[in-house]
Amino acid sequence: MSRFFTERYASLVPYIPGEQPQDMQYVKLNTNESPFPPSPGVVEAAAREAGNCRLYSDPESRLVSEAFAASLGLKREQVLACNGSDETLNFAFMAFGRELAFPDISYGFYPVFAELNHIPYTEIPLRKDLSLAPEDYYGLHKMIVLANPNAPTGMALKRDEIEAIVKANPDEVVLIDEAYVDFGAESAVGLIEKYDNLLIAQTFSKFRSLAGARLGFAIGDAALIRDLNTIKYATNPYNVNRMTSAAGIAALEEDAYYRANARTIQANRRFTTDALRALGFEVPESSSNFVFARRPGLSGETLYRELKKRGVLVRHFSKPRIDDYVRVTIGTREQMDIFLRETETVIKEVLV
Amino acid sequence: MSRFFTERYASLVPYIPGEQPQDMQYVKLNTNESPFPPSPGVVEAAAREAGNCRLYSDPESRLVSEAFAASLGLKREQVLACNGSDETLNFAFMAFGRELAFPDISYGFYPVFAELNHIPYTEIPLRKDLSLAPEDYYGLHKMIVLANPNAPTGMALKRDEIEAIVKANPDEVVLIDEAYVDFGAESAVGLIEKYDNLLIAQTFSKFRSLAGARLGFAIGDAALIRDLNTIKYATNPYNVNRMTSAAGIAALEEDAYYRANARTIQANRRFTTDALRALGFEVPESSSNFVFARRPGLSGETLYRELKKRGVLVRHFSKPRIDDYVRVTIGTREQMDIFLRETETVIKEVLV
Repeated sequence: MSRFFTERYASLVPYIPGEQPQDMQYVKLNTNESPFPPSPGVVEAAAREAGNCRLYSDPESRLVSEAFAASLGLKREQVLACNGSDETLNFAFMAFGRELAFPDISYGFYPVFAELNHIPYTEIPLRKDLSLAPEDYYGLHKMIVLANPNAPTGMALKRDEIEAIVKANPDEVVLIDEAYVDFGAESAVGLIEKYDNLLIAQTFSKFRSLAGARLGFAIGDAALIRDLNTIKYATNPYNVNRMTSAAGIAALEEDAYYRANARTIQANRRFTTDALRALGFEVPESSSNFVFARRPGLSGETLYRELKKRGVLVRHFSKPRIDDYVRVTIGTREQMDIFLRETETVIKEVLV
Repeated sequence: MSRFFTERYASLVPYIPGEQPQDMQYVKLNTNESPFPPSPGVVEAAAREAGNCRLYSDPESRLVSEAFAASLGLKREQVLACNGSDETLNFAFMAFGRELAFPDISYGFYPVFAELNHIPYTEIPLRKDLSLAPEDYYGLHKMIVLANPNAPTGMALKRDEIEAIVKANPDEVVLIDEAYVDFGAESAVGLIEKYDNLLIAQTFSKFRSLAGARLGFAIGDAALIRDLNTIKYATNPYNVNRMTSAAGIAALEEDAYYRANARTIQANRRFTTDALRALGFEVPESSSNFVFARRPGLSGETLYRELKKRGVLVRHFSKPRIDDYVRVTIGTREQMDIFLRETETVIKEVLV
């Protein structure tokens, strides 16, 4: 820390993103990226737009916002384009967070954003089996943040359960982070018109294969979106660049390609879950593009390290309650075969 | 404002970006963009990288940071890549701002960032001729923020004058915003090794024709850059997308193209300044890619409005002291001819 750093952030512990190794080629199953490239139209549209970059991007991100809203049957005033979901989350915490509540096991950035914005927060324990008890979130008088499906467990709430939470907290914003919703969970988007306190975050990073382009959206009542715009115009008015906007529009036009990819990932998830269970792992049923797994007698840290040696990258969190697990992104069938083969080898070599 | 918006930001007045009209083609001289497209290699590099967007960008932005640092004769640890200069400024205010001082006439986002971060600030009046008196900034015991050249005046301090300010405030960060430095001012980059309290913001939006790609850099002592990284990793770890990083690297490789463009802009600035003076305007000598001009008897608001009707977009600020002026981006010679012709028409028609 330099001698100039303010006291405000002196105790800040930043988020640690998953490894993005530049040194060698791994079977990369650690940051929940899609194994499938963006669709051809995306590459063309981004390439075409690169030539227009002398001009600022539209601060309102009109075209991509209209296209995204239309894809959900909503109006542009009900969505806000952001530089990835992380920006959506930070803007929402800034705009609506007086006190916060979220699960003890969830996306690791929630407590970081809370600390960054000096918002007191309560971490509510998941059940012993890592499932979430909706009734724990009734009438909290705090802004609630839930990932659905949850990360890193992959487990999802039903829309009725989300609705019950939204209904039971009419005076606080309930933020549902739907980063992984397109891999098999029920979206709460249909509830937007009914509840003015429901805010949803979605991203193009996973389902739409655009993690490296940085595009996310907030979805909610027009009054919530206006507030987020107030924050945006005081923070980063040109937050979405031209190439990414163009890529996002094209990705929405080629929906069938991404739906087909999601079906492949669901099939590979079924296959991987069953195969891991056959190898003695406990694997909660996942609705996302990753599985969370542990095997009695094998520490998550060891499995992570041994797999990395063998060229397979998964994610391990050194955190109470989930220290035993690894989180494994669902890739292609070929990638999952390699992961399973190497996991079997590790089990044989380590558990002697 | 929704009923959920926090008191923290209730009084926030966001920055209003210059118009980015989507309805018709203007001679667009209002947001200091380059009239020249990005160089061919930039478009190729961005297009090539679009296909890799399924993977997250490198959170360290290693390659583009190394290339940028090398172009300045610095090490990677002395720079931080940001999602445009606005992000650099916000991160710097967050990291180092206890109290702030900046000129009363300067980039309109400084007071917004100060309000956003609840940092008290003092606006120090420019001299009557809109020049900046360096001695006003000696020993302030506040973080100092200066655009050099200043916007919207275009006037620049010499490096010696910047150094004197940095030297006279050893216990505070002095942030020099060099968004327009490549159009004829002296950069303070050469002072980085000498002063641990000097922080510089540069951008690819102007000189490098990449406003729509969003790329800026902080430049400073490695300890300052580490602090900015703490903020970044708690805010937006993947802040620079893959296509923009690739575009940035290519833009650095094609330096000669941009230098030639800057020389053209300098020549067109000379021509425009002289022509405006011949039409009765007062025009301070500019070191940037815009000029600031007023004409006795013609309000800035009127000139802005009349020019817009005629298809020419310039910038007007409804702000005490500069209400009489318009800020005119220097474009191609053809664009400046149209601007001057229409300005002459307005003078004839309005000043009857």
